[in-house]
Amino acid sequence: MSDDTIRNRRIVLAAHPRGLPTPQDFRLEDAPMPAPAEGQILLRTLYLSLDPYMRNLMDAVGPVYAEAVKPGETMVGGTVSRVVASRHPDFKPGELVLGNAGWQTHALSDGEGLVRLGEVERPSLALGGLGMPGFTAYVGLFDIGQPRAGETVVVAAASGAVGSVVGQLARLRDARVVGIASGADKCRQVVEELGFDACLDRREPDLAGRLAAACPDGIDVYFENVGGEVFDAVLPLLNIGARVPVCGVIAHYNDDAPPPGPDRLAGAMTAILQKRIRVQGFVILDHYADRYEEFRREMGQWVDEGRIRLREDVVDGLGAAPEAFIGLLQGRNHGKLVVRVAAD
Amino acid sequence: MSDDTIRNRRIVLAAHPRGLPTPQDFRLEDAPMPAPAEGQILLRTLYLSLDPYMRNLMDAVGPVYAEAVKPGETMVGGTVSRVVASRHPDFKPGELVLGNAGWQTHALSDGEGLVRLGEVERPSLALGGLGMPGFTAYVGLFDIGQPRAGETVVVAAASGAVGSVVGQLARLRDARVVGIASGADKCRQVVEELGFDACLDRREPDLAGRLAAACPDGIDVYFENVGGEVFDAVLPLLNIGARVPVCGVIAHYNDDAPPPGPDRLAGAMTAILQKRIRVQGFVILDHYADRYEEFRREMGQWVDEGRIRLREDVVDGLGAAPEAFIGLLQGRNHGKLVVRVAAD
Repeated sequence: MSDDTIRNRRIVLAAHPRGLPTPQDFRLEDAPMPAPAEGQILLRTLYLSLDPYMRNLMDAVGPVYAEAVKPGETMVGGTVSRVVASRHPDFKPGELVLGNAGWQTHALSDGEGLVRLGEVERPSLALGGLGMPGFTAYVGLFDIGQPRAGETVVVAAASGAVGSVVGQLARLRDARVVGIASGADKCRQVVEELGFDACLDRREPDLAGRLAAACPDGIDVYFENVGGEVFDAVLPLLNIGARVPVCGVIAHYNDDAPPPGPDRLAGAMTAILQKRIRVQGFVILDHYADRYEEFRREMGQWVDEGRIRLREDVVDGLGAAPEAFIGLLQGRNHGKLVVRVAAD
Repeated sequence: MSDDTIRNRRIVLAAHPRGLPTPQDFRLEDAPMPAPAEGQILLRTLYLSLDPYMRNLMDAVGPVYAEAVKPGETMVGGTVSRVVASRHPDFKPGELVLGNAGWQTHALSDGEGLVRLGEVERPSLALGGLGMPGFTAYVGLFDIGQPRAGETVVVAAASGAVGSVVGQLARLRDARVVGIASGADKCRQVVEELGFDACLDRREPDLAGRLAAACPDGIDVYFENVGGEVFDAVLPLLNIGARVPVCGVIAHYNDDAPPPGPDRLAGAMTAILQKRIRVQGFVILDHYADRYEEFRREMGQWVDEGRIRLREDVVDGLGAAPEAFIGLLQGRNHGKLVVRVAAD
């Protein structure tokens, strides 16, 4: 019997990071195993999702859409868990549930917000392409980006949890898809496995020139999940009437202060005006009530049929989460990043 | 009989301006009176419209939506003219027409793009609230901004041709309207004559603080026609789901290069994301086919009923156009700026 079954282990925020987080910004703690009170259930974490938005929760002032994590508090995160013990009428021991148990091996829950998964072959997909990241791709691309057949769609972080799905969804709509990813390996995989029309290595020089060459008809949809130099390369290529769903600006999550000049906002606004561009931010939490059921049905079918492929980057053990998360912010993951907290 | 009736006078672009245009960037020229060939008409300009977009046409590389004016060419502009002579079957001498005759006293036309105005009391309004600027306000506010009753709408250049109409249209939809204008006189007039709920003098210190105080419930729609420091003051106040129609960035038209840092784009994109903001540029030329007839009918009625008031800033004589235009770019006009080129 491992220690995990008698102690709860958790990763708390040790300190608000300055810029890119370091391992010292996290602390692994042992705590007594919690016992469920009447109406509660005890969950054992199988998979923990690591996602870029978590960086925003680590600052003293959190983002608009969620509470910040305070030093000493357990890091927040989506999880797939087994019910270990239940004093709740709706949940039985052994059930598999999707929830937000955070960065810890065990958690108590009153059942609020838990989703029963049933017995599925790859439960961790509920944290990826069949869950929040896939839903982000679906809503951002279809509802805001609205690609039409023959249009050109550009996706940054193309091998990531969201970008990899965006590109495949755009291909389903018969758009031409150009990805941008870090490293030749990822680019090759994005084209060969995921069916993108092209993929550019952002680490090679002259991204702007290569992107222009890869998009001879300009860009109609740019799915923004990165910001920074990728946006700079995209902006001059946007066509009249282009759409830019903004789901993340990971390049800026570690900024302590506005980057140095020159100031690119004026040029961006001029382009937005002259080219009638629509730039629209969205936070996926807003869309569950309206669009989630349809997404689950459609995406589940596409994955079953092999029309959408979901690649995961799995790291083992809760203790590996901080390093893996730091790597995620640097684009080192290759597919949806999840931590296997416990063997099932 | 004045000289104007026997010579055509015109203002040509003398040189591409560097930054804010100077009088030396324009040249007043005399030319022989043109004579209509078969199928042509000779127009005598009564009113010339001066609009911020013209600054964009003066650069060596024009905007995406229109041809640049080359040195030596007549400046482009919307006009109300009388038909002086006609060898065209559809136009009779004496008719009043809306067209694009440019900065000159006379022009030939083949009738293409001319709109007959009939006999109207204030023909110059066809260049203002009943024409392109009013249509810009209508499409930008209603189709993109979509203000709802009780929401807060902020309009910069609130006493200008577009801004003054935007604010009044928003009041018709029962929104709360806060204007920003240059100088106490303009602000008073915007509130007292045009019915805005409040108006802030952008020349006074701490615009950001005063705007926050004037918008206790935040900002739901910001009609962007200025850019620069006004946008900076607006951005932190935008509410979740805010809409930002972008019809102009006059603060940047004279930029030779990107402004110095810090770079505000990252912060703007972060706000767009977290607050689910929609920023959408539009160029009014795109919308005539679909929306112009409805605009003409509705706006004409609102003006007739006194529900929308249209204020004009009229300067006399073609020779006054360059100075008036330079003043427009500095916010010195007070209402829609038109040049009375000839008495009718």
